[in-house]
Amino acid sequence: MSILVVGTMAYDAIKTPFGQTDKIIGGAATYIAYSASYFHKPINLVSIVGGDFDFQEMENLKARGADVTGVEVKQDGKSFFWSGVYHMDMNTRDTLVTDLNVLLEFNPILPEAYKTSDYVLLGNIDPDLQMKVIDQMSSKPKLVVLDTMNFWMDIALDKLKAVIAKVDVLTINDSEARQLSGEYSLVKAAKKILAFGPKYLIIKKGENGALLFHENNIFFAPALPLEEVFDPTGAGDTFAGGFIGYIAKTGDTSFDNMKRAIIYGSAMASFCVEKFGTERLKELDIEEIHDRVEEFVSLSQFDISIEE
Amino acid sequence: MSILVVGTMAYDAIKTPFGQTDKIIGGAATYIAYSASYFHKPINLVSIVGGDFDFQEMENLKARGADVTGVEVKQDGKSFFWSGVYHMDMNTRDTLVTDLNVLLEFNPILPEAYKTSDYVLLGNIDPDLQMKVIDQMSSKPKLVVLDTMNFWMDIALDKLKAVIAKVDVLTINDSEARQLSGEYSLVKAAKKILAFGPKYLIIKKGENGALLFHENNIFFAPALPLEEVFDPTGAGDTFAGGFIGYIAKTGDTSFDNMKRAIIYGSAMASFCVEKFGTERLKELDIEEIHDRVEEFVSLSQFDISIEE
Repeated sequence: MSILVVGTMAYDAIKTPFGQTDKIIGGAATYIAYSASYFHKPINLVSIVGGDFDFQEMENLKARGADVTGVEVKQDGKSFFWSGVYHMDMNTRDTLVTDLNVLLEFNPILPEAYKTSDYVLLGNIDPDLQMKVIDQMSSKPKLVVLDTMNFWMDIALDKLKAVIAKVDVLTINDSEARQLSGEYSLVKAAKKILAFGPKYLIIKKGENGALLFHENNIFFAPALPLEEVFDPTGAGDTFAGGFIGYIAKTGDTSFDNMKRAIIYGSAMASFCVEKFGTERLKELDIEEIHDRVEEFVSLSQFDISIEE
Repeated sequence: MSILVVGTMAYDAIKTPFGQTDKIIGGAATYIAYSASYFHKPINLVSIVGGDFDFQEMENLKARGADVTGVEVKQDGKSFFWSGVYHMDMNTRDTLVTDLNVLLEFNPILPEAYKTSDYVLLGNIDPDLQMKVIDQMSSKPKLVVLDTMNFWMDIALDKLKAVIAKVDVLTINDSEARQLSGEYSLVKAAKKILAFGPKYLIIKKGENGALLFHENNIFFAPALPLEEVFDPTGAGDTFAGGFIGYIAKTGDTSFDNMKRAIIYGSAMASFCVEKFGTERLKELDIEEIHDRVEEFVSLSQFDISIEE
């Protein structure tokens, strides 16, 4: 059983109220792979990088269980680069630079061994490319998770909806759910979006947690209140990586297990923000992760027996 | 065992994206009393109204278990009046009119029978008046809960801190917690505020739920995702009323029971917003409330057994 992850690998330069970085490793697929690697291996990566990419980072990912056969290296190109600055509230940020570079040439071709992956996570890229990945699968995956963003709703809505109709789980944030559905109420928004095809919808609310919708069921997972949020970059991807990693580890796509997967994803995201970039995600162990999950249990669990 | 509630009784005129009202009954003490009345009686009310106050409303409150001996009626005065308009997101509003009227003369004098109340909820009024109420108690209450707002932090911070030091539970919203502590992180803010004296801090986050802090423990209660929020006015007071009502009913001020009380308070608030003003709070029954609490259970409960 393997996990297929398609998404960006990149360099980021990040400024927060607590400090700033030069170019550090980033990209959705990178965060997803590090996060998922604590739960399940192998992780079949599909991405594109330039000749400037630090191959020690590629070795690190391989050491954590990533198969990088599907990562195209354009020796004469430059890796995707993003630079941004976070405001004091850490929920809003301004993008300073987006250099797509080799990402403009991204044409995901799945190595033969990837085509039977059981769990597929399509990171936030052009919906045409996401569709192309789905079309290359030779066996039906147990679960396909799609991440996207408002940008694709703005410029490629029909294509995006076509991909959404083919996946099991869609993950977007609250404002994207509102944009995609035209509904302000997230409950109404979820009903409309589930009618587009996916069986599950995860609405990410950053420091305000995440909602899982499935048929008429709703589950809410809080974010862990933290003393310090150092750098929120990649938290959503880390969440998704923990989510699919836990699902793959347990092999259980029931609603009850998705709740647990969301808690594990939230725990991973709470680590991610503690240091710049992927730094924290490289140094965890499973004990720490379990302890963090226990914090979610004590944070959100209560015992009510209704006496009528 | 009785509950003492001190706060405003008022008229509100409310406009939301879904409609608008003429003057309807409002005020923190009114919402608190209606909400608490589903759990425990009597509720000893202390407030002030003008000769224009609808005495049928006073009869309604009495019928629900409120003792109104402590409500001063200024026959030649007008009741406190507030008017506001909510924006589409329902989280922000503009105040159009604040006519304090008789509230300017509010000087809470406790009837003798109120002075031994076991549970005290000091609604959002001048901290001088809140202190005056505390000073009139002849026996130490089992629990004193204080609500306040940014306005008093702006103009009477020292007096407010003096009251905060004397209560068991402080309830404020997230931006007020940040203002009061000077800390952006709510975890850091809570530590500072608990050091001011209260044993418990509840940070209300509206549609993003509520946090309970006590020593090093944190509990998070989600708000119920709703198809429609019709009118958020009074939701915070309704939450507080359900909270203290449940605590009084159970007679248990432990952290575990406070969690349950917060869930009940959240359930009551979720009803409040379904109609204008106190309308929904007048027509509930305990079955409906228990059903709503069950929705919170399925919304937030999950079952994780950590296998190391």
